[in-house]
Amino acid sequence: MTGGYGLLVADLIGVAVFAASGASAGVAKRFDLFGVAFVGFAAALGGGIARDLVIGAVPPLAFADWRYAVTAVLASVAVFWLHPKLHRVRRTVLVLDAAGLGLFTATGTLKALDAGVPPVGACLLGMLTAIGGGLTRDLLTGEIPIVLQRDIYAVVALGGAILVTIGHRLGLTGLGPLVTAAVLMTGLRLLALYRRWSAPVAVP
Amino acid sequence: MTGGYGLLVADLIGVAVFAASGASAGVAKRFDLFGVAFVGFAAALGGGIARDLVIGAVPPLAFADWRYAVTAVLASVAVFWLHPKLHRVRRTVLVLDAAGLGLFTATGTLKALDAGVPPVGACLLGMLTAIGGGLTRDLLTGEIPIVLQRDIYAVVALGGAILVTIGHRLGLTGLGPLVTAAVLMTGLRLLALYRRWSAPVAVP
Amino acid sequence: MTGGYGLLVADLIGVAVFAASGASAGVAKRFDLFGVAFVGFAAALGGGIARDLVIGAVPPLAFADWRYAVTAVLASVAVFWLHPKLHRVRRTVLVLDAAGLGLFTATGTLKALDAGVPPVGACLLGMLTAIGGGLTRDLLTGEIPIVLQRDIYAVVALGGAILVTIGHRLGLTGLGPLVTAAVLMTGLRLLALYRRWSAPVAVP
Repeated sequence: MTGGYGLLVADLIGVAVFAASGASAGVAKRFDLFGVAFVGFAAALGGGIARDLVIGAVPPLAFADWRYAVTAVLASVAVFWLHPKLHRVRRTVLVLDAAGLGLFTATGTLKALDAGVPPVGACLLGMLTAIGGGLTRDLLTGEIPIVLQRDIYAVVALGGAILVTIGHRLGLTGLGPLVTAAVLMTGLRLLALYRRWSAPVAVP
Repeated sequence: MTGGYGLLVADLIGVAVFAASGASAGVAKRFDLFGVAFVGFAAALGGGIARDLVIGAVPPLAFADWRYAVTAVLASVAVFWLHPKLHRVRRTVLVLDAAGLGLFTATGTLKALDAGVPPVGACLLGMLTAIGGGLTRDLLTGEIPIVLQRDIYAVVALGGAILVTIGHRLGLTGLGPLVTAAVLMTGLRLLALYRRWSAPVAVP
Repeated sequence: MTGGYGLLVADLIGVAVFAASGASAGVAKRFDLFGVAFVGFAAALGGGIARDLVIGAVPPLAFADWRYAVTAVLASVAVFWLHPKLHRVRRTVLVLDAAGLGLFTATGTLKALDAGVPPVGACLLGMLTAIGGGLTRDLLTGEIPIVLQRDIYAVVALGGAILVTIGHRLGLTGLGPLVTAAVLMTGLRLLALYRRWSAPVAVP
């Protein structure tokens, strides 16, 4: 559904980046190689698995297409061996993570709409595709999910999902609008990082 | 399935109350507005989503009917702004929570039976509908689920689910028996709170 | 699918053992009787429920066949009452747990293959069937999942799942090959315990 070869490659880049974030969290908790690979897999594919179960697309892509699982595991193993050098590429990882956020939201929202989910539910599912992996990663490593605490991350996904849904209604389907929406979200996420925007916290 | 307009309103009251309990937990953990709304949504709809996935009703009601998500988010946002005044209405919240427990158990059990789940599984699913949201809330906020630790809460749900299942076998369907079972559970839960009943803990 | 009466009995032994491990964790956290039974149920059946949802077998066996739920609850209640005497049978429990690991992996992998899941996904699902319950148990009791941290446990399951998948390709179906694979995994797990094998941890 997510289109041709170009989108598959983009999808797998998102998988690799999110797997790397999960694997880093596993290394930090002193998990063994298996644990690091498992958290990497869950961080990369947890959001998509939840989305596929909700729309009834079984077995989910993570189990139906071996390239997703293999990409997630290879990225996790790479982090396991290379993590002492990773702080040098921190900026690159943040940019790739923002790209993953934009892409996963756009494809997740479209998959939900194509499966017949109404607009509000499709927006929620698009966002869930993007943040579900990070949520799973934090639960598996015993942390309170960071996405709930601060930072403009999920809100960018939600805004992007609404944009994709409106575009879908207007007949703007195909690769062009999808990439446009993903690029917009990526840019907004990077701007939020750069300007240190954050959502309000309740007064005590 | 849950009947006409009256039951929808009752269902949405349950959603609002459980969302408020989730949102309060999010505020207590200093989550931002998004995190508070997310925990509220999960607390209100997590049990029903799990039930719908188990019985194969996809997409689950929480994504298929926008009124559920919107109610959960509005109740959460209200708690975000009003929480300093909430301790005044604590008694009201406990009564509404007991009503939500009764109603979610009754409708959850019936949905499972209508989907062809055998009696024992339907009782478990009815209980899961009622306690699943609170479980999710506690996991997302880094707490050990309170429902596992003390208090007569899940046991009321389980007893009510068994009652609903027996009634269903005896041909007692429709709105009347459902409301009767829900009211019985609500009363029993309030009695358990008032008398401070609790389940046994293993001797060390 | 898992074959005749012999396999059902073996399956239920696995359920009872995993329920006992969950119930012990609940007793250690001072959960009440309901909480102990709930964690026991989740530890015994969480992996199988996840597998069934992923392959679209709804309702999952845990809800469709009452013998699974009843076995899990009875084993949990037994642990609740008898736990002070359990340290005497610790060795027996470890052997039974290894048997459960082997059996759950073998049947889980075969169910996934029979449902049309491709080989890589089926191996992951077989492993998930075996380790999913322990993961759920640890999350419900507020612990970081032990299976991610050390010990050769999931790797035995993964290796066994690969073996079952290769056997399935070669036409080795039926009870014989399944039991052989389960026995191999059980032996390997016991050897790993005895020799204190562990997977590598990343250099800091």
